[in-house]
Amino acid sequence: MVGIIMGSDSDLPIMKQAAEVLTELNIPFELTIVSAHRTPERMFDYAKTAHKRGINVIIAGAGGAAHLPGMVASITPLPVIGVPIKSSNSIDGWDSILSILQMPNGIPVATVAVNAAKNAGILAARTLGATNPEIQQRMIQYQQDLQKAVEAKIEIVKVEYPNGFD
Amino acid sequence: MVGIIMGSDSDLPIMKQAAEVLTELNIPFELTIVSAHRTPERMFDYAKTAHKRGINVIIAGAGGAAHLPGMVASITPLPVIGVPIKSSNSIDGWDSILSILQMPNGIPVATVAVNAAKNAGILAARTLGATNPEIQQRMIQYQQDLQKAVEAKIEIVKVEYPNGFD
Amino acid sequence: MVGIIMGSDSDLPIMKQAAEVLTELNIPFELTIVSAHRTPERMFDYAKTAHKRGINVIIAGAGGAAHLPGMVASITPLPVIGVPIKSSNSIDGWDSILSILQMPNGIPVATVAVNAAKNAGILAARTLGATNPEIQQRMIQYQQDLQKAVEAKIEIVKVEYPNGFD
Amino acid sequence: MVGIIMGSDSDLPIMKQAAEVLTELNIPFELTIVSAHRTPERMFDYAKTAHKRGINVIIAGAGGAAHLPGMVASITPLPVIGVPIKSSNSIDGWDSILSILQMPNGIPVATVAVNAAKNAGILAARTLGATNPEIQQRMIQYQQDLQKAVEAKIEIVKVEYPNGFD
Amino acid sequence: MVGIIMGSDSDLPIMKQAAEVLTELNIPFELTIVSAHRTPERMFDYAKTAHKRGINVIIAGAGGAAHLPGMVASITPLPVIGVPIKSSNSIDGWDSILSILQMPNGIPVATVAVNAAKNAGILAARTLGATNPEIQQRMIQYQQDLQKAVEAKIEIVKVEYPNGFD
Amino acid sequence: MVGIIMGSDSDLPIMKQAAEVLTELNIPFELTIVSAHRTPERMFDYAKTAHKRGINVIIAGAGGAAHLPGMVASITPLPVIGVPIKSSNSIDGWDSILSILQMPNGIPVATVAVNAAKNAGILAARTLGATNPEIQQRMIQYQQDLQKAVEAKIEIVKVEYPNGFD
Amino acid sequence: MVGIIMGSDSDLPIMKQAAEVLTELNIPFELTIVSAHRTPERMFDYAKTAHKRGINVIIAGAGGAAHLPGMVASITPLPVIGVPIKSSNSIDGWDSILSILQMPNGIPVATVAVNAAKNAGILAARTLGATNPEIQQRMIQYQQDLQKAVEAKIEIVKVEYPNGFD
Amino acid sequence: MVGIIMGSDSDLPIMKQAAEVLTELNIPFELTIVSAHRTPERMFDYAKTAHKRGINVIIAGAGGAAHLPGMVASITPLPVIGVPIKSSNSIDGWDSILSILQMPNGIPVATVAVNAAKNAGILAARTLGATNPEIQQRMIQYQQDLQKAVEAKIEIVKVEYPNGFD
Repeated sequence: MVGIIMGSDSDLPIMKQAAEVLTELNIPFELTIVSAHRTPERMFDYAKTAHKRGINVIIAGAGGAAHLPGMVASITPLPVIGVPIKSSNSIDGWDSILSILQMPNGIPVATVAVNAAKNAGILAARTLGATNPEIQQRMIQYQQDLQKAVEAKIEIVKVEYPNGFD
Repeated sequence: MVGIIMGSDSDLPIMKQAAEVLTELNIPFELTIVSAHRTPERMFDYAKTAHKRGINVIIAGAGGAAHLPGMVASITPLPVIGVPIKSSNSIDGWDSILSILQMPNGIPVATVAVNAAKNAGILAARTLGATNPEIQQRMIQYQQDLQKAVEAKIEIVKVEYPNGFD
Repeated sequence: MVGIIMGSDSDLPIMKQAAEVLTELNIPFELTIVSAHRTPERMFDYAKTAHKRGINVIIAGAGGAAHLPGMVASITPLPVIGVPIKSSNSIDGWDSILSILQMPNGIPVATVAVNAAKNAGILAARTLGATNPEIQQRMIQYQQDLQKAVEAKIEIVKVEYPNGFD
Repeated sequence: MVGIIMGSDSDLPIMKQAAEVLTELNIPFELTIVSAHRTPERMFDYAKTAHKRGINVIIAGAGGAAHLPGMVASITPLPVIGVPIKSSNSIDGWDSILSILQMPNGIPVATVAVNAAKNAGILAARTLGATNPEIQQRMIQYQQDLQKAVEAKIEIVKVEYPNGFD
Repeated sequence: MVGIIMGSDSDLPIMKQAAEVLTELNIPFELTIVSAHRTPERMFDYAKTAHKRGINVIIAGAGGAAHLPGMVASITPLPVIGVPIKSSNSIDGWDSILSILQMPNGIPVATVAVNAAKNAGILAARTLGATNPEIQQRMIQYQQDLQKAVEAKIEIVKVEYPNGFD
Repeated sequence: MVGIIMGSDSDLPIMKQAAEVLTELNIPFELTIVSAHRTPERMFDYAKTAHKRGINVIIAGAGGAAHLPGMVASITPLPVIGVPIKSSNSIDGWDSILSILQMPNGIPVATVAVNAAKNAGILAARTLGATNPEIQQRMIQYQQDLQKAVEAKIEIVKVEYPNGFD
Repeated sequence: MVGIIMGSDSDLPIMKQAAEVLTELNIPFELTIVSAHRTPERMFDYAKTAHKRGINVIIAGAGGAAHLPGMVASITPLPVIGVPIKSSNSIDGWDSILSILQMPNGIPVATVAVNAAKNAGILAARTLGATNPEIQQRMIQYQQDLQKAVEAKIEIVKVEYPNGFD
Repeated sequence: MVGIIMGSDSDLPIMKQAAEVLTELNIPFELTIVSAHRTPERMFDYAKTAHKRGINVIIAGAGGAAHLPGMVASITPLPVIGVPIKSSNSIDGWDSILSILQMPNGIPVATVAVNAAKNAGILAARTLGATNPEIQQRMIQYQQDLQKAVEAKIEIVKVEYPNGFD
């Protein structure tokens, strides 16, 4: 199971995209609010017990000085995927990227692109698929579907000189 | 098994740190050179077949316009961990960070800090431990060892006023 | 002939400006979608065969971790012009600029300004004009037209003290 | 009393400057190692109990994804002064600045310049002096001494045309 | 008492948030306009006399080349909290952050996040609470309230597979 | 007389602010379009002859890769004031700032803030006032007016606890 | 023929790499100093006449506020390849990158990576090869040689667990 | 006369370059230390009286949160040239650039490149030459000398294929 956490309900419009892609891929998850700065004890408990409660991968989203992914990673033995969120008053997302990415030796966070909660969900699926052939097969299928979606557009967009755009 | 790849042998002093921490954690790996730009076909083959050859996680390091991690991730269904390398003529590492991190929807790369090949190795171990209790246990042990190493230093560094530094 | 490619139809509003300026300059082109990350095999085939199909210059546009221009350049012997696209969730365009520009030794990409698909088209024309006097003449004409357009505005904008703006 | 903490003994050459200036200003302090990522429970205990142990201000230094100052600030009611440290593999200090400075609403960290542990010590003294006239007087004296040190140099450096430098 | 100053009335929508949180915390303050660049003498007088007029902490907000916090800190012995303001024609707030944060040795400014006047107010309260148990108690209460506000949201946001979002 | 030039009429909304403040200060000027890239010969002639035509200071505004101020400065012996303009497709103004500011040894450009054409006009007036007591007097008056405008606002904005904002 | 120009002899250690790779590829070139800022008339003449003197492609290198590539491109109809040079007092190369890359509509510069004069030479060769099968063939050969050089290293670097590094 | 000031004697190795070029151009100057942060009253007096003491242009150099140029400009009616200095613990010079350049409307600082004290001296000479034909003539001569210095190098550096470098 994938545990999805975020610091605030203002992060939900981004973070629910992780839940949606996991639903699409038929991978169980739970989603809740855990704030490193406003509920540090809850964060501590969540991280301490997640692997005992059946969680295999944690996805943590946060903006600004984003400490949630790194702090959870320092307590849990599970892989933690960090989603930098470009919140208002963020400095173009640089603050959340760097405070999630630049973890010290010993405690990695698997960082994805700014606002890329969907990719965090897919990365969680790949993580579970690393040792599970059935989930790995779903990823192969998912990538083939991406390819087909592009191929469908190829037919529509093709333009050739001297016939221009309408 | 973890597959460690890099674009050039100049990346080896950094990337061997992934191999070293995996050795320390008793996790099998292979390490080789695969260049997205100089050996694109080899890169293609590597990514296409890795999951069939028993590889579970790929660690890919690259500097500058670092395309190796993202390109491999677009072909393999496995989780790919990207290590941005601060090479000479890199722009302070920003180029490799951004060209690894900012992947489009559908194809995530698990990015770690600049030059953090050691953390990439640990993240690979956590990935395998997500569904493997024995490896997860090693991660718990590893984190306890980190803690003990800090605690040993605490005794040495403690300073209290009015007794200053020598 | 110029080959114009882009990773997604969302890039079309920018990339069609390359097609438009080439049409204006009477230079044949074809335009299609090729995604490095979603259709890696198609990208590989496109780059492998372009020079055999009569294409002389490739213009490739991409946003975020923009791998298309560099990957195509690593496979084709043709000059590749890269257009960094400032997509949503891009970090102000820095990600696409750096992942196109900072190619390693041996595989250059001719990078133009952010969103500057029009300039990519003009650069393609200059490239063909490098050895073709007739196209070179068109470029000279094009530059004279730019100059005349500015000169026409000079008459309108001229303001002199003490006569101010209306 | 001022509590000075840092994540690692590698931060000591910078952080001892806080201790030195506090010694100079006759303000009691204690200094120890507390790592947010390697000793999260110790960090939690430190922050939870500091104000009960007679500490009035906390100075916390950290590099990279610097979570120590913000995490401590989220647990303690005391003012926390954060010192961004430009460590090796830091990205020019941007990572530590932003992950200390950009705290969310409700939990401030008083951030000082990169590597400015000395200024952190002075800010701690000013904080205590806010309500303590005697310490405030020492700050006035300190500022007058700064001024005198500059004035002493003025005499030496003064150069006037046409008499140049030797 | 807390003195809140800002360079221009255009900063008021941000800076009044400091006044509001101080009102909420029952901490006296005064708020006025002091411009380092347009009223340098007034700024000089304000800084020179603040501590004599019963002010204990100064909060100074400014945008662009933000000199007000640092200049005031160079004249007063009080702790000065600087609020970088992201004004129009600011460069994403970088200019105000750096010209407030990067003070030279000897003259610290306690810098908070971009536009974080609310946090400046809270930091002023913590500063007063450093030596005042009653105010410190209010901070403890304030942090517990933050925690409760998050906990209230936890119940609403909780989502679990296979029950998705509406 | 002040010569105001800009690369394109799209820069006029910004650059006319230089003309307006010079009108307010009763300093003669002329304003016209000179494009370094589209009318290089005109730019060359303008710069070569300006000091012979009675121009004393040149204000040059440009966006993106802004070469106009620096190129004019390389040809004229007059002081050149550069105004970086944040145009569309500019990278937050960084491109125009750096390509105006970072001139090589021997050829300075007096750079002002992004979009600060008004300040460019004032700097031109200060430049003329450097050796002209009457214009210098106008600058003193101008600064006193700035001060009075702030003082007028002080009365309106003043707020004191416990009386809050309406 | 390729024309290689640079603003100063201090750029020669970088720019000679363009000449070296062109020599290796048997492509005629000439190399000289042309400074946009110190010899503007010479720059003007060079750009005005290059295509008449048998030059097909221009490579221009410059540091800081790098105007040479863009100014030459505004005068010549030839393709211009710009090499940003990270000189002393450059701001990490950002200034030269942005002042070469961010050219306005109508006048493109084909920008390569920081200090990548070698890649500029290869891009010049690809440009000539766009319409010249024999040179195109040399590029194909060049790319195969790159590939072979990597393959030779593969054999040396290969490491497999449990056999580590020496 | 030109007044050269700097915040600290550590800035002297850079700032003396302004004095040297002014000596070379036969323009009188005085040079002294004035610190905005350590001697605010001295700074205030300097700025208040400079134009009465016969100073026509002020050159002010500062590093980090560089307030000296802007504060002096807010008090004096003279043109102020600001030199951003890349000091240790500066963030690559960005802090001093932005805190000098980004002045608010009404108070311009003529900013030159990082560490470009020599260019500040030349700009001061151009400022005086704006209304002084004799000094203007010296600037014309200075530019011709720059040109000749480049021309002398042209003969030495010229290289032509197939004759390479030694």
